[in-house]
Amino acid sequence: MAFRPRHLLGIEHLSPEDIRTVLDLAEEYVDLNRRTVKKTDALEGMTQINMFFENSTRTQASFELAGKRLGADVMNMAMQTSSVKKGETLIDTALTLNAMHPDLLVVRHGSSGAVDLLAQKVECAVINAGDGKHEHPTQALLDALTIRREKGRIQRLTVAICGDVAHSRVARSNLILLGKMENRVRLIAPPTLMPSGVAEFGCEVYDDMREGLRDADVVMMLRLQKERMDGGFIPSEREYFHRYGLDAEKLAYAKDDAIVMHPGPMNRGVEIDGTIADDINRSVIQEQVEMGVAVRMAVMDLLARNLRADRGRALNEGTYV
Amino acid sequence: MAFRPRHLLGIEHLSPEDIRTVLDLAEEYVDLNRRTVKKTDALEGMTQINMFFENSTRTQASFELAGKRLGADVMNMAMQTSSVKKGETLIDTALTLNAMHPDLLVVRHGSSGAVDLLAQKVECAVINAGDGKHEHPTQALLDALTIRREKGRIQRLTVAICGDVAHSRVARSNLILLGKMENRVRLIAPPTLMPSGVAEFGCEVYDDMREGLRDADVVMMLRLQKERMDGGFIPSEREYFHRYGLDAEKLAYAKDDAIVMHPGPMNRGVEIDGTIADDINRSVIQEQVEMGVAVRMAVMDLLARNLRADRGRALNEGTYV
Amino acid sequence: MAFRPRHLLGIEHLSPEDIRTVLDLAEEYVDLNRRTVKKTDALEGMTQINMFFENSTRTQASFELAGKRLGADVMNMAMQTSSVKKGETLIDTALTLNAMHPDLLVVRHGSSGAVDLLAQKVECAVINAGDGKHEHPTQALLDALTIRREKGRIQRLTVAICGDVAHSRVARSNLILLGKMENRVRLIAPPTLMPSGVAEFGCEVYDDMREGLRDADVVMMLRLQKERMDGGFIPSEREYFHRYGLDAEKLAYAKDDAIVMHPGPMNRGVEIDGTIADDINRSVIQEQVEMGVAVRMAVMDLLARNLRADRGRALNEGTYV
Repeated sequence: MAFRPRHLLGIEHLSPEDIRTVLDLAEEYVDLNRRTVKKTDALEGMTQINMFFENSTRTQASFELAGKRLGADVMNMAMQTSSVKKGETLIDTALTLNAMHPDLLVVRHGSSGAVDLLAQKVECAVINAGDGKHEHPTQALLDALTIRREKGRIQRLTVAICGDVAHSRVARSNLILLGKMENRVRLIAPPTLMPSGVAEFGCEVYDDMREGLRDADVVMMLRLQKERMDGGFIPSEREYFHRYGLDAEKLAYAKDDAIVMHPGPMNRGVEIDGTIADDINRSVIQEQVEMGVAVRMAVMDLLARNLRADRGRALNEGTYV
Repeated sequence: MAFRPRHLLGIEHLSPEDIRTVLDLAEEYVDLNRRTVKKTDALEGMTQINMFFENSTRTQASFELAGKRLGADVMNMAMQTSSVKKGETLIDTALTLNAMHPDLLVVRHGSSGAVDLLAQKVECAVINAGDGKHEHPTQALLDALTIRREKGRIQRLTVAICGDVAHSRVARSNLILLGKMENRVRLIAPPTLMPSGVAEFGCEVYDDMREGLRDADVVMMLRLQKERMDGGFIPSEREYFHRYGLDAEKLAYAKDDAIVMHPGPMNRGVEIDGTIADDINRSVIQEQVEMGVAVRMAVMDLLARNLRADRGRALNEGTYV
Repeated sequence: MAFRPRHLLGIEHLSPEDIRTVLDLAEEYVDLNRRTVKKTDALEGMTQINMFFENSTRTQASFELAGKRLGADVMNMAMQTSSVKKGETLIDTALTLNAMHPDLLVVRHGSSGAVDLLAQKVECAVINAGDGKHEHPTQALLDALTIRREKGRIQRLTVAICGDVAHSRVARSNLILLGKMENRVRLIAPPTLMPSGVAEFGCEVYDDMREGLRDADVVMMLRLQKERMDGGFIPSEREYFHRYGLDAEKLAYAKDDAIVMHPGPMNRGVEIDGTIADDINRSVIQEQVEMGVAVRMAVMDLLARNLRADRGRALNEGTYV
């Protein structure tokens, strides 16, 4: 296998072959997770630390289960209540954890770039579990796996990403991944929630949802991130749903077999009509969650293999202490 | 063994034989827990998720230890700080967790019936760890095990349940269990803390503690749940203790060998006199906690066996994905 | 090995040989923790409960990793949000936990002596992870291991402990340990932050930092514990740094090869200049964290051995239930 990265900081650093390697290995973990005995020893004796500076029950749970099923010792650190509050810097926190010899560090942080910075200071593998408005690479990988399983391929598809694009690292990571895999990506958002500079990604931009959805294979809804909107124009939820919420009438513009995705947690009746979300013929929202555990297992397994290989080389060369 | 339930939602769904099966298996786990090596592989490779929408350090700890000693991967989710706060519905939370393929879901929730609802939406075994004023089945089972060990039987005993009956799911589950096992149950409470409709359970109702305790074999004190009293009459703690707190004088009305129980945490000097609580000849309060871990191990072990059997059948019939 | 204590409540109860036994075993765990597979089965099947009544992300993480790497089942209890809040006494909490049959109880508490009290009520081994202004024995042991590795010995050294001595259990435990190992200890603090009665420990007392640092082998800085200062004189941070913060100019008074220590988390620019903290030729602050995990593994391993031996004896004598 050709997967060589030391960290998973963003989709931008992965090649199409890297992406395929993750997805292929994740398929094996999908099968494992459906069994009663869901355990391997791929990370036996290794230490995974989850460092969430922002709350995220769902993503943290997914990483925790992934690590435990791989046999790692998993430790969660609630960074909101930690020594960070006593005035410690991010770098000091990173160096402290590093001295405890973790093998995998899963980090979520509110500032774009914080995870990259941290990765430069530690000797273990770092996984970005979401940093500011920057990247959320495992979300894009789990979305890609879901699409590939549903559509039979992750190329030459028309994917519409709809909603609060401006505040969404999910949108950004998906945009990059889908572009690398040669899909046609459309961004649909009200002008106030569309970031500038998206044209460089080679995607099409819409503010009319019906136009944007026309003939789409995949409709990817985004969460309206009210907690990140400071000062900008906030539409009323009712008005937002009327214009940008996914309902049967708007979905009819997409292909007949278009699938509907959402990264969760959903605001029913705001971004998406509850009936659509629950329609097992269209919605793949539960499958996304299932793929999340499998993709995270695959990523951690691959990074651990590289870690072992690096340490083996260092030992042979006499540079590993 | 005849234990067939898929979930443990309440004592009301268990037969006397089911109850005996749990207690018998729990005895084996009592022995195991007293050893230095307290570990089995009964749940090896299975995933247990503890979902506590209400805080409960003690019950959660008991379930966590039980799962770990059975070899499960145990994950705690702090639901108070979770995506529920971001507006997600209980059902969406349940479906999300379900997609991560847990095997056992232990749920505490503030609303009566919430755990039943949740159980209908998931494919794993669900254990009710307390829902509103409805049921707390593992508490009743651990109380039954404690009584059986102390009295040599769990039939034909006179059990007085005293205190804040109105707000107590502990009282309700015990009432049902003790009734099924053919005991004589007396409820003792001030009129404002006695629920209506208890007569249907075939129990006797008292508002005088001395009368209610007369010749009792078991005195089961309840916690005064000040946090659940909204608007109703709240007696002063001093007045409450005077009339309904267990002290030596009142306890003398019960049988000479009556045992004293309390589900904890205790309000010393409110429901119970500290001297009684600490009297190792009468109080079995610590034993209740010890039995709690053993009973929870037994319940999870039995439910896991049924899960395995169901999945085996589904595989043979080709219906298990 | 001669290590006989049942608990680790304070350095005051350890003999010099006990201390050497811990440090020697910890060296083995330093090696283990640097490997990719960091796991032993020394505590397999045993239960470790971390009971932190005060928040401490870093110390709790160190104990949690130590326990997991030894193969224990580790459970964290967030005592700030627990039934303690519902009015339960410390002793009731201890008895409740004891009934769940833990083997190792790691306790941090805000009151001096609380951990000793608790140890009298339980049957397992208790480790003091910091109690009030009293002791923090594993911190002193990890500091001793760091010094011994850097200086080649833990005797006949001049160690300057500088800063907020009055509020520091770290200072107190180190003072006792360094005295037992026949080192020369100097305490440096502003008069308002120097406790009375330190003379009995046979140490020298300074309020001038340059004088105190003269020819020191080890410079041990303390954290300014603003959260513990109630009512007393609090210097401005700037003034404090000017007089008692460690910078290059002051450090020049110590020996040329003096090492710089800090228990963390650091207030950069208050107790210590950032440049000194990061100087890999002088600062051993990261090494202290690394030694922390190893020392805690050694302590828990040794206490578990004693627990096994005690239980074996009790079984033979028929007194173990």
